[in-house]
Amino acid sequence: MKLDFDLVVIGSGPAGQKAAVQAAKLGRRVAVIERRHMVGGVCTNTGTIPSKTLREAVLYLTGMSQRGLYGQSYRVREEITIHDLLWRTQHVIDRDIHVIRDQLARNRVTLITGDARFVDPHTVGVRGDNGEERRLAAEKIVIAVGTHPVRPETVAFDGRTILDSDGILQLDHIPQSLVVVGAGVVGIEYASMFAALGTKITVVEQRQRLLQFCDSQVIEALQYHLRDLGVIFRFGESVVGVDAHDGGTITHLASGKRIPAEAVLYSAGREGATGSLELENAGLAADDRGRLTVGPTYQTGAKHIYAVGDVVGFPSLAATSMEQGRIAACSAFGEACTTMNGSMPIGIYTIPEISFVGKTEEELTEASVPYEIGISRWRELARGQILGDAHGMLKLLISAEDRSILGVHVFGTGATEVVHIGQAVMALGGTVDFLVDTVFNYPTLAESYKVAALDAMNKLRAVERATEKARPARPRKRAA
Amino acid sequence: MKLDFDLVVIGSGPAGQKAAVQAAKLGRRVAVIERRHMVGGVCTNTGTIPSKTLREAVLYLTGMSQRGLYGQSYRVREEITIHDLLWRTQHVIDRDIHVIRDQLARNRVTLITGDARFVDPHTVGVRGDNGEERRLAAEKIVIAVGTHPVRPETVAFDGRTILDSDGILQLDHIPQSLVVVGAGVVGIEYASMFAALGTKITVVEQRQRLLQFCDSQVIEALQYHLRDLGVIFRFGESVVGVDAHDGGTITHLASGKRIPAEAVLYSAGREGATGSLELENAGLAADDRGRLTVGPTYQTGAKHIYAVGDVVGFPSLAATSMEQGRIAACSAFGEACTTMNGSMPIGIYTIPEISFVGKTEEELTEASVPYEIGISRWRELARGQILGDAHGMLKLLISAEDRSILGVHVFGTGATEVVHIGQAVMALGGTVDFLVDTVFNYPTLAESYKVAALDAMNKLRAVERATEKARPARPRKRAA
Repeated sequence: MKLDFDLVVIGSGPAGQKAAVQAAKLGRRVAVIERRHMVGGVCTNTGTIPSKTLREAVLYLTGMSQRGLYGQSYRVREEITIHDLLWRTQHVIDRDIHVIRDQLARNRVTLITGDARFVDPHTVGVRGDNGEERRLAAEKIVIAVGTHPVRPETVAFDGRTILDSDGILQLDHIPQSLVVVGAGVVGIEYASMFAALGTKITVVEQRQRLLQFCDSQVIEALQYHLRDLGVIFRFGESVVGVDAHDGGTITHLASGKRIPAEAVLYSAGREGATGSLELENAGLAADDRGRLTVGPTYQTGAKHIYAVGDVVGFPSLAATSMEQGRIAACSAFGEACTTMNGSMPIGIYTIPEISFVGKTEEELTEASVPYEIGISRWRELARGQILGDAHGMLKLLISAEDRSILGVHVFGTGATEVVHIGQAVMALGGTVDFLVDTVFNYPTLAESYKVAALDAMNKLRAVERATEKARPARPRKRAA
Repeated sequence: MKLDFDLVVIGSGPAGQKAAVQAAKLGRRVAVIERRHMVGGVCTNTGTIPSKTLREAVLYLTGMSQRGLYGQSYRVREEITIHDLLWRTQHVIDRDIHVIRDQLARNRVTLITGDARFVDPHTVGVRGDNGEERRLAAEKIVIAVGTHPVRPETVAFDGRTILDSDGILQLDHIPQSLVVVGAGVVGIEYASMFAALGTKITVVEQRQRLLQFCDSQVIEALQYHLRDLGVIFRFGESVVGVDAHDGGTITHLASGKRIPAEAVLYSAGREGATGSLELENAGLAADDRGRLTVGPTYQTGAKHIYAVGDVVGFPSLAATSMEQGRIAACSAFGEACTTMNGSMPIGIYTIPEISFVGKTEEELTEASVPYEIGISRWRELARGQILGDAHGMLKLLISAEDRSILGVHVFGTGATEVVHIGQAVMALGGTVDFLVDTVFNYPTLAESYKVAALDAMNKLRAVERATEKARPARPRKRAA
C-alpha cells in the first residue's frame, strides 16, 4: 500500500497540534484533519482561549482587579456590553488561529479541511464541503478529536437563553440572572466571570463543595469570595429539567425547588467526539462516554493508532493535552521521549484564580505523611499591596521528615504563573531551605515563596524544640 | 558595661528590617532606630514602593497594558491628574508602613525614633524630637542607613521643577516635558513612566547605551520602545548645569546643547547616608561616596559592627539588601546561615519591564563559553495574545557543552515574576531538557520556558548534526 503520509492527526486542538509538529520535527510527512472554522479545536474557538480572554476583559473593564485600591464601586465602564467583551475575544481567537496555521505551515504539516472517519485501520476518509471523500493512507494515526458537551433531552437548549459551555459566548447581552448547572472547572470559571459582571448567579452542583481535587482551604476561600459577589450555591442538588419561557428560563431541581433566571449555562459533563469516526473500521471502540482507553504512551488497542487530549479523559487541560500529543508522536516514531516531569500543575481560571501542584493536605493526612504548612498572604507582600489584592495566598506543604516540598497551593492574582516556581523546585528536589536562601525580585508575588518558607521553617523548629524538651533527660533504657 | 540590647540596627529599610527580625527570631533583644516619618526607609517612602505603585497606576490608567488589544489611542482616563496617581501611592505607602511596624512589633523589636550617631564602638546615641539624646549600649550593631541622592552645586534644585529621585513625587502636575539626567535604573524607570503618561522626555546619559549590565538585545528592545513613545536619548553627553526660570528649566550640556523643559529629574548617582553617623567614634571611615566596605558576611572593619543594604554599594536592590540583613544578623549571633543561592536576579521596572539571572551573551562570549540561544515571544503564546503584549520575550542561554542554563533574560509583561522559574532551575542544576519535559499551565507566560527550550534544543541538534557530517568518514589517523 502506498502511504500518503507518515502520520495523520485527526483534530487540531492542543493535543493534535503538538503531535503533528513533533512528528514533523522528526522529519515525518504529517497531515492534520480539521473541520472548517475549527482550527485550534474547542480550545481556540469556544473553550480555553475565548473564556480566558473574556476573563481578562472582565477583570479589566469591571475594575475588579483594582477595587482593593480604588474602592468597591470602581469600574472602568459603568455600562459594559457583551460587545466590549466579545470584540476582544474574537480578536484573540483570530490571532491564535493565525499562530497555529503559521506554526503548522512552518513545520510543513498539511492541513486538510473536512470531517474524518476511519475507512480501515490505516486509511482515514475526509469529507470536504463538496461532499466528496478523499482517502489518506498513513503509517500512524493520532486521534485528537476532543469532546463536546453532554446535552440531556430534559434540557431545552435553544442557543439563546439555555446554553452549553461551548455556546455560552452566543449570549447577545449580559444576563441579569444566570443559573449554572454543574460546578466543574468550566462551570465555575464562567460563574465567577458573570458574577464579577454583576449577574445574579445560582450554581447547582450535586456534590457538597466545589472542585473536590483542590485544597479545601483554597476552595473555602473561593466559595467565600463568590458568595461575597452574591453567588448562591445549591450543593447536593440535581437538575431534573430546564425550560424556556417568554421571560426567560426555569430550572427544576429534584428537591422540588424551581429557579427562575434570564439564562442557564448547562455545564454538566462532556463526552468524547468520537461518534462519527467509525472507530469500528479501525477495530476500536469508545466507552459509554465516547472516550478511548490508552496505555502509558497513549497507544490505543491498535498499536499504530494513538489517542490524546480530552478524548482520553482526565485531566482534560490544554497543557497536559499538548504533552500527550508530543509523547504520542515520539513514541509512534521510536524517538526517546521522557514522560512528564514530576507532578502536573493544575490551573483554574476562576476569579480569583487557583493553581496547585503536588499533594493536598487531605491526601497527605490520608496517607499518614506528616507535614508542616507555610503560608504567605498577598496583603503582606509589597507587590500584593501594589496590586490591591487583599486575599491572595501561597501555601506550601513541607515534609516534616526531610523538608522536601510536598505541595504548592496558590490562590489569587498570578496563581497560575507563580505555581511554576514551586513546581520546578519540587521536581528538581529542592527543599524548604532552598526557598529560604533564594533571593527574589522585590516587589514580586514570587517573594511569597520565601515568606511561606520562613513561616514553615519556624513551625518545623518549634516542633523540634518541643520534641527535644519532651524527651527525658536520660535515655529511658537506663532508667529501666 | 550593661547592655540595653543585643543588637541595635540603624535604619529600617529592607536591610535593617530583615536584620532586626532575624536577630529577634534567634531570641535576641533588638532595637531599630529610624527618623520620624521614615519607617521603611527610602524604599517605602520615596523609592521602590512609591515608584512601583506609580508605575502600576500609570499602566492601568493610561491603558498602556491594553493597547495591543484596544488600539493605540485607548486610555481609561483622558485626563490623568497627579492626584489620580499619587492617591494610590500614598495609600500603598501607608499600608506598607503598617505591615513593617506590625512585623517588628510581632517579633518584639523595639522601634526608636530619632537621629543616630556613634558615641563609642558599642554605644549609639539617638536624638529625638525634644533634642535630648538617649544612649543605647549594644553587643552588636548593624548599619543600614541607605543612601541619598548626590546634589551637585551646578544644579539649582528647587523642590518644584528641578528634582532629585527622592523628590520626583513632589511634582504638583504631570509635566509636558521632562529632562532625565542619568539613565541608571531609577532614572530610566521614571523616564518610561512619564513617557507612558505622554510627557516629552529627553534622557541625558554619559555612556553610549542604557544599563550596561543587561543583555544587549533586551536593551535594544527597551530603547526601541522608549523611542517609539517619543523619548529622545542624548548618549555620550554630560550635564554642566541646570537652571530654573519662569517658564521652566534649562539643562546645559558639555557639548554646548541646551535643553528647555518644564521639569528636570536629576538622577545621577547616590551616596551613603553616613555623614551624620560620626563613624570615627566607632573607629570606622566611609569612602569618598559615603559608603562602607564589608567582608563576605557584611562585617565592617570593627568586628561587632555590620553594614548592609545600599550603604555598601552594588547592587543596591531591595531584594539583595534584605538578604544581606539576614546574613549579617545570623553571622553576628553565630547562627549558620547559608549565603545566597546561585545567581542573584536583577529586576528593573521600566515599561516594559526587564529581569534576568545568570550571564549575558557578552559575558559568555568574552569568557569563550559556547552557548546556544532559545527564544520565545509573548505574541506566539496564547497568554501573550490575551494580554495584548506583542513585544515580550524570554531568551535562554544554554551551554553547548552540558545543556545547563547559563542565563535567563526576560523582557515584557511579568518579566520580574517569570524569571524566578529559570532561576530555580539554574540553581538546582536543571538543564534545558528539564524545561522541555515540564508541563506548564495554559495559557501562561511560564509556558515561554518550554517554547524557548524547544527552540534551543533544535539549534543544539542542528549543530550536532552538522558537526557529525563535517567529520571525515574514516579517522584522520588511519589516512596519515
